[in-house]
Amino acid sequence: MAVRTVRAAVAGASGYAGGELLRLLLGHPGIEIGALTGNSNAGRRLGGLQPHLLPLADRVLAETTPEVLAGHEVVFLALPHGQSAAVAERLGDEVLVVDMGADFRLKDAADWERFYGSAHAGTWPYGLPELPGARAALEGSRRIAVPGCYPTAVSLALFPAYAVGLAEPEAVITAASGTSGAGKAAKPHLLGSEVMGSMSPYGVGGGHRHTPEMIQNLSEAAGERVTVSFTPTLAPMPRGILATCSAKAKPGITAQEVRAAYEKAFADEPFVHLLPEGQWPATASVYGSNAVQIQVTYDEAAGRIIAISAIDNLTKGTAGGAVQSMNIALGLPEDTGLSTIGVAP
Amino acid sequence: MAVRTVRAAVAGASGYAGGELLRLLLGHPGIEIGALTGNSNAGRRLGGLQPHLLPLADRVLAETTPEVLAGHEVVFLALPHGQSAAVAERLGDEVLVVDMGADFRLKDAADWERFYGSAHAGTWPYGLPELPGARAALEGSRRIAVPGCYPTAVSLALFPAYAVGLAEPEAVITAASGTSGAGKAAKPHLLGSEVMGSMSPYGVGGGHRHTPEMIQNLSEAAGERVTVSFTPTLAPMPRGILATCSAKAKPGITAQEVRAAYEKAFADEPFVHLLPEGQWPATASVYGSNAVQIQVTYDEAAGRIIAISAIDNLTKGTAGGAVQSMNIALGLPEDTGLSTIGVAP
Amino acid sequence: MAVRTVRAAVAGASGYAGGELLRLLLGHPGIEIGALTGNSNAGRRLGGLQPHLLPLADRVLAETTPEVLAGHEVVFLALPHGQSAAVAERLGDEVLVVDMGADFRLKDAADWERFYGSAHAGTWPYGLPELPGARAALEGSRRIAVPGCYPTAVSLALFPAYAVGLAEPEAVITAASGTSGAGKAAKPHLLGSEVMGSMSPYGVGGGHRHTPEMIQNLSEAAGERVTVSFTPTLAPMPRGILATCSAKAKPGITAQEVRAAYEKAFADEPFVHLLPEGQWPATASVYGSNAVQIQVTYDEAAGRIIAISAIDNLTKGTAGGAVQSMNIALGLPEDTGLSTIGVAP
Amino acid sequence: MAVRTVRAAVAGASGYAGGELLRLLLGHPGIEIGALTGNSNAGRRLGGLQPHLLPLADRVLAETTPEVLAGHEVVFLALPHGQSAAVAERLGDEVLVVDMGADFRLKDAADWERFYGSAHAGTWPYGLPELPGARAALEGSRRIAVPGCYPTAVSLALFPAYAVGLAEPEAVITAASGTSGAGKAAKPHLLGSEVMGSMSPYGVGGGHRHTPEMIQNLSEAAGERVTVSFTPTLAPMPRGILATCSAKAKPGITAQEVRAAYEKAFADEPFVHLLPEGQWPATASVYGSNAVQIQVTYDEAAGRIIAISAIDNLTKGTAGGAVQSMNIALGLPEDTGLSTIGVAP
Repeated sequence: MAVRTVRAAVAGASGYAGGELLRLLLGHPGIEIGALTGNSNAGRRLGGLQPHLLPLADRVLAETTPEVLAGHEVVFLALPHGQSAAVAERLGDEVLVVDMGADFRLKDAADWERFYGSAHAGTWPYGLPELPGARAALEGSRRIAVPGCYPTAVSLALFPAYAVGLAEPEAVITAASGTSGAGKAAKPHLLGSEVMGSMSPYGVGGGHRHTPEMIQNLSEAAGERVTVSFTPTLAPMPRGILATCSAKAKPGITAQEVRAAYEKAFADEPFVHLLPEGQWPATASVYGSNAVQIQVTYDEAAGRIIAISAIDNLTKGTAGGAVQSMNIALGLPEDTGLSTIGVAP
Repeated sequence: MAVRTVRAAVAGASGYAGGELLRLLLGHPGIEIGALTGNSNAGRRLGGLQPHLLPLADRVLAETTPEVLAGHEVVFLALPHGQSAAVAERLGDEVLVVDMGADFRLKDAADWERFYGSAHAGTWPYGLPELPGARAALEGSRRIAVPGCYPTAVSLALFPAYAVGLAEPEAVITAASGTSGAGKAAKPHLLGSEVMGSMSPYGVGGGHRHTPEMIQNLSEAAGERVTVSFTPTLAPMPRGILATCSAKAKPGITAQEVRAAYEKAFADEPFVHLLPEGQWPATASVYGSNAVQIQVTYDEAAGRIIAISAIDNLTKGTAGGAVQSMNIALGLPEDTGLSTIGVAP
Repeated sequence: MAVRTVRAAVAGASGYAGGELLRLLLGHPGIEIGALTGNSNAGRRLGGLQPHLLPLADRVLAETTPEVLAGHEVVFLALPHGQSAAVAERLGDEVLVVDMGADFRLKDAADWERFYGSAHAGTWPYGLPELPGARAALEGSRRIAVPGCYPTAVSLALFPAYAVGLAEPEAVITAASGTSGAGKAAKPHLLGSEVMGSMSPYGVGGGHRHTPEMIQNLSEAAGERVTVSFTPTLAPMPRGILATCSAKAKPGITAQEVRAAYEKAFADEPFVHLLPEGQWPATASVYGSNAVQIQVTYDEAAGRIIAISAIDNLTKGTAGGAVQSMNIALGLPEDTGLSTIGVAP
Repeated sequence: MAVRTVRAAVAGASGYAGGELLRLLLGHPGIEIGALTGNSNAGRRLGGLQPHLLPLADRVLAETTPEVLAGHEVVFLALPHGQSAAVAERLGDEVLVVDMGADFRLKDAADWERFYGSAHAGTWPYGLPELPGARAALEGSRRIAVPGCYPTAVSLALFPAYAVGLAEPEAVITAASGTSGAGKAAKPHLLGSEVMGSMSPYGVGGGHRHTPEMIQNLSEAAGERVTVSFTPTLAPMPRGILATCSAKAKPGITAQEVRAAYEKAFADEPFVHLLPEGQWPATASVYGSNAVQIQVTYDEAAGRIIAISAIDNLTKGTAGGAVQSMNIALGLPEDTGLSTIGVAP
């Protein structure tokens, strides 16, 4: 193919987000993989760290420095929260910097400081193209803030209800995530022995850092402040998010209006698939894919709209979303290098 | 020990509920295991059907007939929904009949008929001793309706908030269940290949048969009709329920009031363990045990009380609850043959 | 791309092998997906049967008849054992028929009859290109017998030792397989409740149908009859085979000779990756990929060569192997539409 | 019951072996649980470390010092390898010291030094009562070396064949273990994200520390040096070992002789269950139980005896075996506080 390739560097190539990004970039016809960095793993072969990425097995990780990252048209930052700003400011304005961390997602500095405990670095165009207005902000941009995995699943499941005024501004959300969402740092509660056969909640009661991001997205869709009660749970699976999202229905709405709003919202979306009525999402169906599977219903007896979405937290929830937004920023077809086909069973 | 033993028969001994019941009865000092029946498996050795129950390996299943079940002081019915009434009426009034199916749980005949599609058989004392008034109804009773697994987890998590008037009558519940809750009948969507690595919802929008049972329990605690939005999900684990239960808070309540209500509700309960603040339940911690682990918090920003419970769906959720209620009915110490110790990791 | 596309039909599109094949064909630039059939599922939407294959969601399965399969240049048969011959003989000699069942794998009719209990249908070129002489037989062929998943993993792990005379003709093999290897038909022992948390053997003592196929492959490599003691086990994972293959070492061999034999055997293979010394395969690393990861060592104290391979049973072990062989038969680059990149973690 | 209770201390109460031991001791009528220690976790509540042990939730761990351990009739040591000797020598000869580590298992000092790299501390009576002569050595003993989990599963599976001379001294063994066998220390390769969905080998080629222990046991049974080719694999489950053990058959043996040898070896064993012919072990069947399920067959074509055992690595493989041996040493019924009933599904 006569596609011009651009060189991309990946800072943080030894973690789960970095590994998934490399998996996708290896299949992207417009990308040439350049520098790979990883701080504690600098100097190590990628083959020992990401043994599933055979074509890159002999690549050796460099340290994450401006010199190493220089000379690339795209730089992906898969760094711990709070580290992206310092790196980004050393890269030129003409470089497309895609931050897979949280640093530039929130618009409200107070929210950032309360949940992350450091100074707010700023706000970049938000890499969830399916949200109203998001694509326009991404086109031609040279800075992208990739959304969190939970906000991706939740915002896509609920924004259609809010955008057309079907729901009261009170959302109750429970989401189950695969363990890769917690990263690759070894912690006792993430051991296989602990997580297999177990479901457990964490960050209950508004404490999860993704909560203000959901509030931001849903409030923008609703045009008013939406409160969100968000409970994340850890599920015994490596990947996947199943988000059960519920919003109090406005008086007098009908099931047909709800269905219509969702059909309209996703009619032209390449990655969001509203399932036929009666079929519900399963995380296995989007394993390794950039697809979002959504179903919605109106529980009249309870007076609530229930929308459920399934994504792969590492693909659409992180690295796939990053590539999708990069494609838009670079003017490539949005689905280049991305698939809606899951690996199942 | 000089405990008098009573003979117990188990109808439906080849299924998951029956197997768990036998596991518990084998360790119960007051029970002698009598007849074991199983319709499609009649004539088969239990060793081939329940290979974990070594002491009963050479027992052969009989057919479920009144003659086989006669002559036992206790008869457990672990039968498909709708089959218990016909069997029970052939057993004498002096026999303690413990129905592990749904037939006698609901008080409202219309609810029964809407969700189960057959005529309502009646209502028996409800085997969830921790609910207000439940123990008194079980003492000396010769009929017990064992609760559903989800209603057990959900009712225990939320009734304290309703009983003291802290919550508005609108509950939103998402629960994740291990696959044994779906039974042992082979269906494609329950294959290991399908469920491992996958989370998926079912019965969304009020369709699950356990919904009216939850409404019944919570409404009785609240003294008013509580609406329940209930979403069950299937989790990749054999056992366990994690119920995330949320109720809109009444205006002006405080976190201290919520904590106090839960501490008081469970202070003397042998099986319900309100965790220390900051520690959340995990299903692995109650694996194979009759314990319920609960934590509660008040999310002031969202205006909701969030209570989360973990149970083993087969133990406290079915067979353990049955034994606990049987103990009360027979006048035995309530915890005879039951443990609060999980098998973990 | 200016690739000429050929139309391919898939008989048995609702099963796991058929689903994986479609996943690969969707990404194959030289294939246009034609008729899809499935007997008990004829008339159903593929979206309900293979919900991970979004681009084909609206395709409806036809019955498996010669008329439906006619008019395709390639026909894949993912049918139960013993059904391929009758279908194949109704397809013209110019059609490339790729049998993913066992019917045409064995050369010895007596072996076939003993293990499968029906008349032997014949022998087709064997679709494991990495074996000595296999590629030549596949080039231009219009009939391909895709190997079994276990024989793929085992033959690749051991043939290099036999081909250069390092091993006595006595192999002892234990392999763990994901549950998808047992297919999608609902059987009680394959329920998630049964397989999660459990390892169990089956077909012990030479009873597994893949044993004669392994003996055939290893004996051809050795130039003498190799006995194989093969024990398959079912592992709690959806996909993957880990084959632990051990052969008694010939007297006087060295570890260097063993390593050299394996390096030479796989030096030019696009899909077989001999890992660096000290690194061992894991099935997660080849999840969804056509790669084979192999490591080998010589245990001098025990006098045995131990070779361990990891494959994805559905990809390289079935559908990927089928596509790889098809590519050779059609004269396409062997790796067209296939990847060596796994989906991990 | 009028059982005299003895006080037992547990050093290493925060790990998996210590936790399982406490689970069993809580149900042991002859034991009163005394001091609990844990080095890095000293000062912490057990409820936060072992949340499944509700009755001990408020116990606080002490440091592992001679003073803390003094005054107990039984002291269990669940310490890292190499640390038991120093502790044991500070405890009086009249104290029953049960070492759950490896320090006193091996008779050959050279083997110890080669595999563990420190000076050999000695050899204590070996806590696998089912081996010939083992019970006599345990009766009244005040020192017990609890076997390794793999040697327990493997030795029980193969010693009958060696004890009556049916097998050549060449054993080939592959065993799959649940992740709890690797302990509770957080390491990246043991993360849930890494192990779920994956099978992988380790310590291949004779490198595993349990190999000399197996050789010791099997050689004693055989009366000659047995070579062992042992490959352990890590399986995606928290508990359980499935050991596939194969030995070259002596010429002229019959399947009947093999069966008879195993029936005789285990006829009076309370915990070892030779399954009926045709039924094979599964780790799920012994989950949480002290039972060993074994099946054996003679593969005449391959000339090998294949014996397969399933145990729970933490119960019979560690803590249950420790309690069983303690019972013998204390003169209690051997099965006191132990069960042959698994928690399944």
